[in-house]
Amino acid sequence: MSSQPSHSTLLIPGPIEFDDAVLQSMSHYSESHVGPAFVSTFSEALSMLRKLFQTTDPASQPLVVSGSGTLGWDLVAANLAEPGDEVLVLHTGYFADSFADCFETYGSKVTQLKAPIGSRPQLPEIEKALKEKKYKLLTVTHVDTSTGVLSELKALSELVHRISPETLIIVDGVCSVGSEEIDFDGWKLDGVLTASQKAIGCPAGLSISMYSGRAIETFKARKTPPGSYFASFKNWLPSKLMFLYLQEISGDVLTIEIVMQNYEAKKPSYFATPSPQLIHALHTALTQILSKPLSERFAAHREISQKIKKAVTDLDLKQLASNPADQANGMTAIYLPEGVKAPELLPNLFKKGVIFAGGLHKEIAPKYIRVGHMGVSVMDPKRGDIDRAIKSLEAGLSEAGYTKA
Amino acid sequence: MSSQPSHSTLLIPGPIEFDDAVLQSMSHYSESHVGPAFVSTFSEALSMLRKLFQTTDPASQPLVVSGSGTLGWDLVAANLAEPGDEVLVLHTGYFADSFADCFETYGSKVTQLKAPIGSRPQLPEIEKALKEKKYKLLTVTHVDTSTGVLSELKALSELVHRISPETLIIVDGVCSVGSEEIDFDGWKLDGVLTASQKAIGCPAGLSISMYSGRAIETFKARKTPPGSYFASFKNWLPSKLMFLYLQEISGDVLTIEIVMQNYEAKKPSYFATPSPQLIHALHTALTQILSKPLSERFAAHREISQKIKKAVTDLDLKQLASNPADQANGMTAIYLPEGVKAPELLPNLFKKGVIFAGGLHKEIAPKYIRVGHMGVSVMDPKRGDIDRAIKSLEAGLSEAGYTKA
Repeated sequence: MSSQPSHSTLLIPGPIEFDDAVLQSMSHYSESHVGPAFVSTFSEALSMLRKLFQTTDPASQPLVVSGSGTLGWDLVAANLAEPGDEVLVLHTGYFADSFADCFETYGSKVTQLKAPIGSRPQLPEIEKALKEKKYKLLTVTHVDTSTGVLSELKALSELVHRISPETLIIVDGVCSVGSEEIDFDGWKLDGVLTASQKAIGCPAGLSISMYSGRAIETFKARKTPPGSYFASFKNWLPSKLMFLYLQEISGDVLTIEIVMQNYEAKKPSYFATPSPQLIHALHTALTQILSKPLSERFAAHREISQKIKKAVTDLDLKQLASNPADQANGMTAIYLPEGVKAPELLPNLFKKGVIFAGGLHKEIAPKYIRVGHMGVSVMDPKRGDIDRAIKSLEAGLSEAGYTKA
Repeated sequence: MSSQPSHSTLLIPGPIEFDDAVLQSMSHYSESHVGPAFVSTFSEALSMLRKLFQTTDPASQPLVVSGSGTLGWDLVAANLAEPGDEVLVLHTGYFADSFADCFETYGSKVTQLKAPIGSRPQLPEIEKALKEKKYKLLTVTHVDTSTGVLSELKALSELVHRISPETLIIVDGVCSVGSEEIDFDGWKLDGVLTASQKAIGCPAGLSISMYSGRAIETFKARKTPPGSYFASFKNWLPSKLMFLYLQEISGDVLTIEIVMQNYEAKKPSYFATPSPQLIHALHTALTQILSKPLSERFAAHREISQKIKKAVTDLDLKQLASNPADQANGMTAIYLPEGVKAPELLPNLFKKGVIFAGGLHKEIAPKYIRVGHMGVSVMDPKRGDIDRAIKSLEAGLSEAGYTKA
């Protein structure tokens, strides 16, 4: 079946298991990062990202930069906020704290709206907060990898557009893009940042994001220069890109010109030395994702998520996200039963062939574990990953002495 | 021979051609970024980097971060300089301008010491500059990719230590690490930054750097917080790393403990979500590099460089770097003869099976081309890359109507 060597199945909330074809694309022979063949691959990947984010607005701007998911925070905080700007961070776990830190690094004033562990700030509180102060940006973690809490974006966006229409809506979609629906245009989002190694299904190393025309205008209207060099939108302005492409041509000139016209039409403003191999893998992953209607993909993630959550409930275990409406479809965070310790359970699960993750929320880290169910593990049932995960969890808990009440 | 599909040989000053085994490592099956197997691979890669940089001082600190080479500038400018600090940038081409921009983004005051195109600032001028002002840092581009000019580090460092011993010496080694000798300890350097895709021979996507104990102390003594979030050394402090490793264990606990002890002993302060696949490829590339004495590697690069430069001279062509002592050993920048245009020559060379790069220095970009000769193209003569490069250049120029005077 798979051309990969036998290994325990990686079912943490990212990195996830990767498809054979994606991994094969990682070993693509070396190409010039400015040659026509690679530029064409990159251009197609950017176009496919528009489809994944469901944006047809030509003003929308995809960005793909070498870096980890964390870099997405810098892209937002260094380009869309200026020192002194007010930012409202909706907190559903560990990653909101870090995004807040990032904003403060670049001089923003951050207000965090925190919910109890396992839940999310409610619309009335958010409305109250938006009425108390004028916020330049609001950020929401679509799925917080530390808690498995899912935020609802559509109603949130409607609220923000109603109460504070100038506020930019920024979504941390690191653990959601590819497993949860994101209707960038329909929900009037201004920025969604993610990483390659989760539900998109491409190895780690790419920061991927999408910005609205309004976000780009906000950047252009800055009164101060961006606070970061590597993460500065300035470094991807068309003029600079065009200069470098023209100077560093290393292939067929006619093709280069066509690429440049495409570039003009599509307005991709990316510039930095990309990783051709990672971009090839991203291209393959996106091609696979878009080979089926997105609605099918999201339905499959919901269905598998329900299957896992039912198994958890059948075991008499509780999730961190107690309200079903707040539960992510690509991961599940599960409280361990009394007496079962992660440092004993996880290695035993590893021996049974599945890798789960420990807790990450610092207040309760030793008390829970996390299971990722995204990408090929969901979309390719022949792999048997999900059934193996459930059976291993049942057996592992039993061997740890747990019997349900 | 090679398991790669047939393709034109990439002989630009990075990315370079990659060895089969390195590319195969890129398609490694998915692993947890915090699991013991991957942590062990990463730890070994960091140890091998110490050998490549020739540092045995335990206070030296290697860093490997997902990102492009550019990110290395942010690492230096955001962590080792504070707003208002004076920085002396030695200019040998395009990349010094960009490094200076990066420093200014983070608030440093930059003085550039520029040399005419094709040469480098001389020691007496540098001495004069160091006596005029107190500089917190001095930066030098070891090989400027835009001009092929090689800087001499040993005498430079001796000068700086004699005239201004508190000044940190920072080397942009993006186009030199792996093809030019760097004696980090012996030359008392404080920071060397590079990227994976040039002479190290690992696909693009990793920012690689080494800092002296003195540089780390300078960071710790900061009066202001670092100006970047993603590039902040703060995010790789041991305490945070240790917390996350302990919380997110996903394998055998005993092994984790051993890794933690290794970590204590080796003091690797790296933290961010790394790319396991890229780190595996880096591990393979470094293993290959260190399988022979480094002196042999550098001698091979000098020898091949001489061969290419002799062919250029035999064709009656001039290099940008007119003084042989200023010529890089991993690339050659060549002025085109009157009447030969890069946008016609380069595609013709592509058809002959070799990819060269156009000019990059904005003042003279259309007037020259660049050839990279690093890594496997130098170390594996069976590939025939260098002979094909020389023959193709001769034929391409001839077909463009050039005959030597």
